[in-house]
Amino acid sequence: MTVLPRGAPTAADRLLSVLAAFDHEHPALSLTDISRRAGLTLTTAHRLVGALTEWGALERDESGVYHVGLRLWEVAALAPRGLALRQIALPYLEDLYEATHENVQLAVRDGRDVVYIEWLSGRSAVGVHIRIGARWPLHATGVGLALLAHGEPGFQEEYCAGGLASFTSYTITDPGRLRRVLAEVRRSGIAVSDRQITEDALSVAAPVRGADGTVAAAVSIVVPHADAQVPVLAPAVRVAARGISRALGWQPERA
Amino acid sequence: MTVLPRGAPTAADRLLSVLAAFDHEHPALSLTDISRRAGLTLTTAHRLVGALTEWGALERDESGVYHVGLRLWEVAALAPRGLALRQIALPYLEDLYEATHENVQLAVRDGRDVVYIEWLSGRSAVGVHIRIGARWPLHATGVGLALLAHGEPGFQEEYCAGGLASFTSYTITDPGRLRRVLAEVRRSGIAVSDRQITEDALSVAAPVRGADGTVAAAVSIVVPHADAQVPVLAPAVRVAARGISRALGWQPERA
Repeated sequence: MTVLPRGAPTAADRLLSVLAAFDHEHPALSLTDISRRAGLTLTTAHRLVGALTEWGALERDESGVYHVGLRLWEVAALAPRGLALRQIALPYLEDLYEATHENVQLAVRDGRDVVYIEWLSGRSAVGVHIRIGARWPLHATGVGLALLAHGEPGFQEEYCAGGLASFTSYTITDPGRLRRVLAEVRRSGIAVSDRQITEDALSVAAPVRGADGTVAAAVSIVVPHADAQVPVLAPAVRVAARGISRALGWQPERA
Repeated sequence: MTVLPRGAPTAADRLLSVLAAFDHEHPALSLTDISRRAGLTLTTAHRLVGALTEWGALERDESGVYHVGLRLWEVAALAPRGLALRQIALPYLEDLYEATHENVQLAVRDGRDVVYIEWLSGRSAVGVHIRIGARWPLHATGVGLALLAHGEPGFQEEYCAGGLASFTSYTITDPGRLRRVLAEVRRSGIAVSDRQITEDALSVAAPVRGADGTVAAAVSIVVPHADAQVPVLAPAVRVAARGISRALGWQPERA
């Protein structure tokens, strides 16, 4: 086994840096793009891209451009917090969509961000363009507030004390105000983000619990702020969130 | 650079073998399981699993068991033939579901298999249990017949001449009969798989074309064989398939 200097990139790091070269702004890359974005020589990039393509993690089209491949998608479909959760949740999200015809989302927490794992487009056009895999800071979205309010107390305190990014004049940037909002989310069981991301959108969210009772995800509706009726939307969102929780094995009587 | 004997596993191969250790029967693995399934020493498995976990491709739960992680899912969501295609197709699949309330699927071809990338559950319970990421041989399913019928002629001939696996007494296993069925699929624009996978299910499928006019995917409905009305279902499936094709940039007038 070769002894590498501490912190030097390993073969595993280099292979993963090739995968990390792909993102929503760069879903299709040439070999040169990959080598530049991954910080690898063209020779190394060529060898690693070859191994990834042979395995099926990448696919090369006729023009020589590389895309993420179906084989990686098949493995990733096993992620309990990705497609597997989304698969369990989808019927309840569809019910929520049927009952409201609004934009419906499912999201999980990853560090200080919320990551959207499902999005059903409703009849209301709002300025927020969410896509699957999109990230936003926890304090700015309904799903994020629902997830943060039920996070470990130490994590919540650390989050509130960190810098709170601002997107509109309505975004909560004061730690004291955020703490009060989180307490209200825990009390009411509902999180509302009012024009915090764009000036025209409001979201209503509720936490989803797993079999062990901890909050595993959150479900929300996004509507135009102008005709938002939170008291009307909140019960539907809560019912959907509880349905998903039960499907995940949550038993309220044990709580 | 180390010169490896031809065919010896590279560092990249070993890392990918860790990911390949996870499948639908093994979505959660201990370090020992991973080392055994990937054919790696415990030391090597430990090092690679550590790198994958740090990057987020794997996640370790409280009990020390590893799962596929959210970061891999985020990268895989960029796969044009996976979530990206599914995201474009979902509204049309939902319309098809709304119009029929039957089981609706979207699938693509990978080698000699069809891979399901979306599945909406309808009111009809059939014995076929499809999940996202499931594979079946092309000749046995409606989506598979639609994809095979529009594949390269050389590939079709090679497929027909290869062994045709049998699942029920209705599965097409005769190459000559398969060729005639494929010609009929091309003529009618519709593929029907009648009890080929289970004795109780029938599927009706239509091809989805990409911007360049080639068949990129297939959409289908699965219903109980007993009350299947193919002439009623076929137009709805074709309309959904054409809607997805248009959303992918297909222009029929150019065909």
